[in-house]
Amino acid sequence: MSTTDTLSRTPWSGTADGAELDRWKAVARGVADRLAADVLERDRANRNPVAEAQLLRSSGLLDLLVPAEFGGAGGHFETAFETVRILATADGSIAQLLAYHYFNQACIGFYADPADQPHWWRRTVEGGWLWGDSVNPVDPTLVLTPEDGGYRLNGLKRFSTGSGVGDVIIINAAVEGGENHGKVLAFVLEATREGLELLGDWDHLGQRLTASGSVRYTDVPVRPADILGEVTEEPIATLLTPGVQLGFGNFYLGVAEGALAQGRDLLLARQNAWFLSGAETYAQDKVFQRVLGELKARTAAVAALAEKLNRRFDAEVARSSALTAGQRGEYAVAIAELKVVATEVGVEVANRIYEVTGASSTSNAVGLDRYWRNVRTHSLHDPVDYKKIEVGAYFLHGELQPLSLYT
Amino acid sequence: MSTTDTLSRTPWSGTADGAELDRWKAVARGVADRLAADVLERDRANRNPVAEAQLLRSSGLLDLLVPAEFGGAGGHFETAFETVRILATADGSIAQLLAYHYFNQACIGFYADPADQPHWWRRTVEGGWLWGDSVNPVDPTLVLTPEDGGYRLNGLKRFSTGSGVGDVIIINAAVEGGENHGKVLAFVLEATREGLELLGDWDHLGQRLTASGSVRYTDVPVRPADILGEVTEEPIATLLTPGVQLGFGNFYLGVAEGALAQGRDLLLARQNAWFLSGAETYAQDKVFQRVLGELKARTAAVAALAEKLNRRFDAEVARSSALTAGQRGEYAVAIAELKVVATEVGVEVANRIYEVTGASSTSNAVGLDRYWRNVRTHSLHDPVDYKKIEVGAYFLHGELQPLSLYT
Amino acid sequence: MSTTDTLSRTPWSGTADGAELDRWKAVARGVADRLAADVLERDRANRNPVAEAQLLRSSGLLDLLVPAEFGGAGGHFETAFETVRILATADGSIAQLLAYHYFNQACIGFYADPADQPHWWRRTVEGGWLWGDSVNPVDPTLVLTPEDGGYRLNGLKRFSTGSGVGDVIIINAAVEGGENHGKVLAFVLEATREGLELLGDWDHLGQRLTASGSVRYTDVPVRPADILGEVTEEPIATLLTPGVQLGFGNFYLGVAEGALAQGRDLLLARQNAWFLSGAETYAQDKVFQRVLGELKARTAAVAALAEKLNRRFDAEVARSSALTAGQRGEYAVAIAELKVVATEVGVEVANRIYEVTGASSTSNAVGLDRYWRNVRTHSLHDPVDYKKIEVGAYFLHGELQPLSLYT
Amino acid sequence: MSTTDTLSRTPWSGTADGAELDRWKAVARGVADRLAADVLERDRANRNPVAEAQLLRSSGLLDLLVPAEFGGAGGHFETAFETVRILATADGSIAQLLAYHYFNQACIGFYADPADQPHWWRRTVEGGWLWGDSVNPVDPTLVLTPEDGGYRLNGLKRFSTGSGVGDVIIINAAVEGGENHGKVLAFVLEATREGLELLGDWDHLGQRLTASGSVRYTDVPVRPADILGEVTEEPIATLLTPGVQLGFGNFYLGVAEGALAQGRDLLLARQNAWFLSGAETYAQDKVFQRVLGELKARTAAVAALAEKLNRRFDAEVARSSALTAGQRGEYAVAIAELKVVATEVGVEVANRIYEVTGASSTSNAVGLDRYWRNVRTHSLHDPVDYKKIEVGAYFLHGELQPLSLYT
Repeated sequence: MSTTDTLSRTPWSGTADGAELDRWKAVARGVADRLAADVLERDRANRNPVAEAQLLRSSGLLDLLVPAEFGGAGGHFETAFETVRILATADGSIAQLLAYHYFNQACIGFYADPADQPHWWRRTVEGGWLWGDSVNPVDPTLVLTPEDGGYRLNGLKRFSTGSGVGDVIIINAAVEGGENHGKVLAFVLEATREGLELLGDWDHLGQRLTASGSVRYTDVPVRPADILGEVTEEPIATLLTPGVQLGFGNFYLGVAEGALAQGRDLLLARQNAWFLSGAETYAQDKVFQRVLGELKARTAAVAALAEKLNRRFDAEVARSSALTAGQRGEYAVAIAELKVVATEVGVEVANRIYEVTGASSTSNAVGLDRYWRNVRTHSLHDPVDYKKIEVGAYFLHGELQPLSLYT
Repeated sequence: MSTTDTLSRTPWSGTADGAELDRWKAVARGVADRLAADVLERDRANRNPVAEAQLLRSSGLLDLLVPAEFGGAGGHFETAFETVRILATADGSIAQLLAYHYFNQACIGFYADPADQPHWWRRTVEGGWLWGDSVNPVDPTLVLTPEDGGYRLNGLKRFSTGSGVGDVIIINAAVEGGENHGKVLAFVLEATREGLELLGDWDHLGQRLTASGSVRYTDVPVRPADILGEVTEEPIATLLTPGVQLGFGNFYLGVAEGALAQGRDLLLARQNAWFLSGAETYAQDKVFQRVLGELKARTAAVAALAEKLNRRFDAEVARSSALTAGQRGEYAVAIAELKVVATEVGVEVANRIYEVTGASSTSNAVGLDRYWRNVRTHSLHDPVDYKKIEVGAYFLHGELQPLSLYT
Repeated sequence: MSTTDTLSRTPWSGTADGAELDRWKAVARGVADRLAADVLERDRANRNPVAEAQLLRSSGLLDLLVPAEFGGAGGHFETAFETVRILATADGSIAQLLAYHYFNQACIGFYADPADQPHWWRRTVEGGWLWGDSVNPVDPTLVLTPEDGGYRLNGLKRFSTGSGVGDVIIINAAVEGGENHGKVLAFVLEATREGLELLGDWDHLGQRLTASGSVRYTDVPVRPADILGEVTEEPIATLLTPGVQLGFGNFYLGVAEGALAQGRDLLLARQNAWFLSGAETYAQDKVFQRVLGELKARTAAVAALAEKLNRRFDAEVARSSALTAGQRGEYAVAIAELKVVATEVGVEVANRIYEVTGASSTSNAVGLDRYWRNVRTHSLHDPVDYKKIEVGAYFLHGELQPLSLYT
Repeated sequence: MSTTDTLSRTPWSGTADGAELDRWKAVARGVADRLAADVLERDRANRNPVAEAQLLRSSGLLDLLVPAEFGGAGGHFETAFETVRILATADGSIAQLLAYHYFNQACIGFYADPADQPHWWRRTVEGGWLWGDSVNPVDPTLVLTPEDGGYRLNGLKRFSTGSGVGDVIIINAAVEGGENHGKVLAFVLEATREGLELLGDWDHLGQRLTASGSVRYTDVPVRPADILGEVTEEPIATLLTPGVQLGFGNFYLGVAEGALAQGRDLLLARQNAWFLSGAETYAQDKVFQRVLGELKARTAAVAALAEKLNRRFDAEVARSSALTAGQRGEYAVAIAELKVVATEVGVEVANRIYEVTGASSTSNAVGLDRYWRNVRTHSLHDPVDYKKIEVGAYFLHGELQPLSLYT
């Protein structure tokens, strides 16, 4: 594994080899199989995914990206993205939990001083931490008020993914007053910290098991030891955002692949054939084969793009402090392209798979709608038309969007 | 109103005037408003729509198509289709219940001997009957065994819309044995008839309040007085099927219009604007206006086609026994065209409306998904690709599909 | 026919009856058949459509909208739109020429003082005038400089449809100087007027026979007798723009219908069948029937919307000076909806019809590409995305776009 | 480079390294630039591409795939596909000529006895041969009649790509009579062979410079030295068909990329802005950026899939005689997926790019239509719906289509 020398802000280097990929994809498939067994019941119960978090913890996936010298698996981002994709074929919620965890936890590498990172990496491994977050940029920024060498935190954040089940929550807030006035700090609190209130109000169409409720912060003490670092516009630090968006692309792709697989199984299981078809069975009818093939082919193209960009993330992150704004920007636009097509194919496959599975597949005992509910819900994270505009503006002018948690 | 003379199998003639349309559209909007008030709660409770049936009954809509001389409103099919479309903007389930009721009840005109029709029309008016059915052609045909001048009925039918709440159920079954061997009879049973068991097993993604469970028939006595008539291939009798399909088209259109209206309201209510937009509000952002306009324009085209075909139904039914197989077939293909585009636009609008309403609109408190769930579920009634084939084959060869309950 | 009383700016009233429609649709089909016979050769030769103009003239179509009391056919706009649609199935260029002629000539009714109209109507009938125009709003406005009780005209206009073949050209220009400074006048010049130079530079992908070259005006004398009237923002006068856009909708629809018809004929003529199909012929193959049916159904919806709006034009124009800005605006948005879907279906059918006609249909001896070339070219007249925005903004806010020659 | 030992039917092994790819992509870009300079004039002149063939010859591209030990460049298929893609951005016809040449020439490796291959490879290098073909499977099979130790060839083949300009033509024909009765032989004739008549009848919508006319064979002598080998169903030999289809995918992709690039340039050059936009220029208008970004993103996904499959071709061909029917079949289906999406994106981009370039871009001086004409024409080579069916059937049943020159 890499070292955190003075030139290198981030601890990752190299790229995944076949053995690493094979090993963790097998682990992910094992977890996916466990999740698939009762995904409908769990989705309907809409409870905090405590057992699911434990499943992730015991699988080893939570520490995949932690450098080996600090007790982690020393894996690569490509591998991490592939595990998200695989989980999403079975359970979109838990795939999202894991994807967000990866990037919440990776903030150690992106924000913390290299000298402080070993301490943080060891804490997350030893604590078996699942990382939730409270950082959505739509709500007003949380406020840190200096007090006694630390701060008091106040404000409200909705869409705090994993907050309801995370061992820790990563939070961004702006300092108001004192010598750090105007800085945005990233810090980490345990979910039981006094003044931190989980509202448990997440009741949405899809992604129901992501524990993404609101969190209210009332005079929550934030101590120096809680602070990971400052949120800066250094290119390597801002690689976080395209990383998260790449996670989305893999997640939507996984949903499409899951819907395709269940659609195929349901079509194969259909009795008889349409009375005008002349075929023996629905699955032998070219009319339905055509639709399935169309959806499969479109998914294959998105998969190829995801795989290419997944591999590239490790190469970009390995540039560390040498990564330029231009390199980061060009790669972010390539990921925006994936976001566009993964959204399109995820929503299309989840919506259209019914064309081959037919009326009986709308039974709630089948639960085929969860793919659509999951991808329809999460794909609204930020407007896909603005991703198209981002791609178009760059293609036209080489113009990059302003840095943000969306771009 | 028309008379049931010997030349005229069916009691309908003329077309709706503006006063009739205005009156009943206003009634339908009143019912739709009542339904909209608690549609989410009722949809989730998934109970038999007893109160909803009573609402339809007291509105007068149930007897809209009953000739005036037998105590009905003497209305026209165009008017009936428009009421279905309006109800579907608010509650897809009750729109379906009403649409099916219209054609179940209209079997009096399509199947019964003209001499017997007055008796049946008066019974339905006096009984305030909501008509359910048990006729889906996917399951094996029910069997009537001759006994004591009547029959015994045996078999199982799924997808029996309205069976759980209808005052009566219309049933098709084939006679096995006796002098009528091989004939298919249409007959009407009250839901409480001995041996008739409502399984109450309807738990599907959408159209949850249609009471469309399975019905098991075990040695159910069917008496001569229950029998409406024989199901024949006389063109006017088979106009029933395109009529039902035209009802579907209106229903899918209404779903699209309902989703558009709620989508507009949600977009208007969105706070702020996307941070890259330069607009004051989301509703002022051309990017979102474009999407809404695209969906609205596509819906307008389907609406125009539905209105044209709705008006034409009264003209075709007025031909009565003079209707030829060719006329019936050509019109059925025109309705198939509507089925294709209404399915496309219904599913598209319900799926894509989220593009303008955003992430917060996925809250279950909003319930915007019901449009998609309803149209996605019902549009699988029969494969829309086979409707395209039907249209294409006719356009190429003037070729009509074999008569069935789908074509 | 209507009278041009003091309340009525425009001379049209009533709506078309079946006899009028039947008569002129038969005339249009006759012209279309003549045009179809050599459309490929004429399209390639790219000459001014002199013979085609004569064909229109002798058919009587040019004076369809001229009131009967002035020697015209006293027909209605619905009829005019239907003739454009029919011509477009055979020859998009000549359909455009006729559509533009109708609205150029109708400027008599929209702009001229009612007292002056009889004179103009008689001149156009007696002269057998085909009206071209020189009014596109993309280029800088032409300038009229007062001189000797009249004006001198200077400037350049591209996209001057029909200018190369029209007997007269209608022109809009702004007055600079004098008592009418700032007014925009509409006036009519014969194509041979001194200083008027036809550049003959129209060499585009499609609509090749529309004689739509540029016109340069160098000190062209414009006399009082040439002036039709002032271009105002009175609602009835501005009905011209939605009228022109409605003509576009009918034209794109006609292109789709023409492509469908030729596509059907080519599919029927294909020998053999695809080796994996199991069908006897390509035309018996459900795979190809499905595509044709899909395109046919989508076209039928657009046709129904066009027909509905065509009929309505006569009702709106009959309001004459009583037409309000709100009525005009609402109707213009309805026509924008047609523009959107007619563009979509025109381009889609022309592009996709090849899916059923196959590789041999790309032979230049077949010339199937002319539908795509024509609709692709003309549908860029103004950006269809802005039509979607117009529809969306109105649906959201009841907001109308500023009056222009596009909206 | 590889050796042609007894185990290895084919002479290729290994995969392309970065240096090989960079070198030949630069060569291809140089050729593409030369072709772009006068592509419109050449396309319109519709002459045999003699100068273009010479350009390919002098660039070295023709011998890219010839093993180094026989005087070729010793390059890989991945590299070859990338050169096709690059040429297609500028000139679809010449891209097709080169793609077909690669696989016509590669028949040496696929069909010839390893002992005979050195001779053939040396002949093609020394002769500077561009290979045309006469093998389309739609027409009836050509017939070889045994005579004097050789054969006489008779029959007609349309769509003989490159026949009009190739130094040699590869032909497939069935033996009728004699000891080889029923075998299909592949053989190579110079275009000047007696009895071989080039009809020069290629006048199609697109791909005009491919010299794809019909060839009539009248008692053409075919000598033993002309015969490359027997066309068998050995998996490695049948890899030819997916190879050709992969070439198509790269070609359609290149067309999309060429249209995108020219579309971008045209949009950047547009003066002013749409009057309702509020933007400074068309290229600054988000409405147009959105469309361009949408098309760009979809193209990027197809590009990623093409690149993945291009790389894989070398791995599959390196298996040589060890390649199993299952491996070949699975890979052919993956290529069918590319065919589907490359067709979709090629046709869509070429058709829709006008949405951002506007009305003036339809001028024939611009010639933006050539992308659509080229991809629309060639994408009808075999019905893309049957490729979807092929993908669907395999995904459902693991079912492979029968071996053919299409599957």
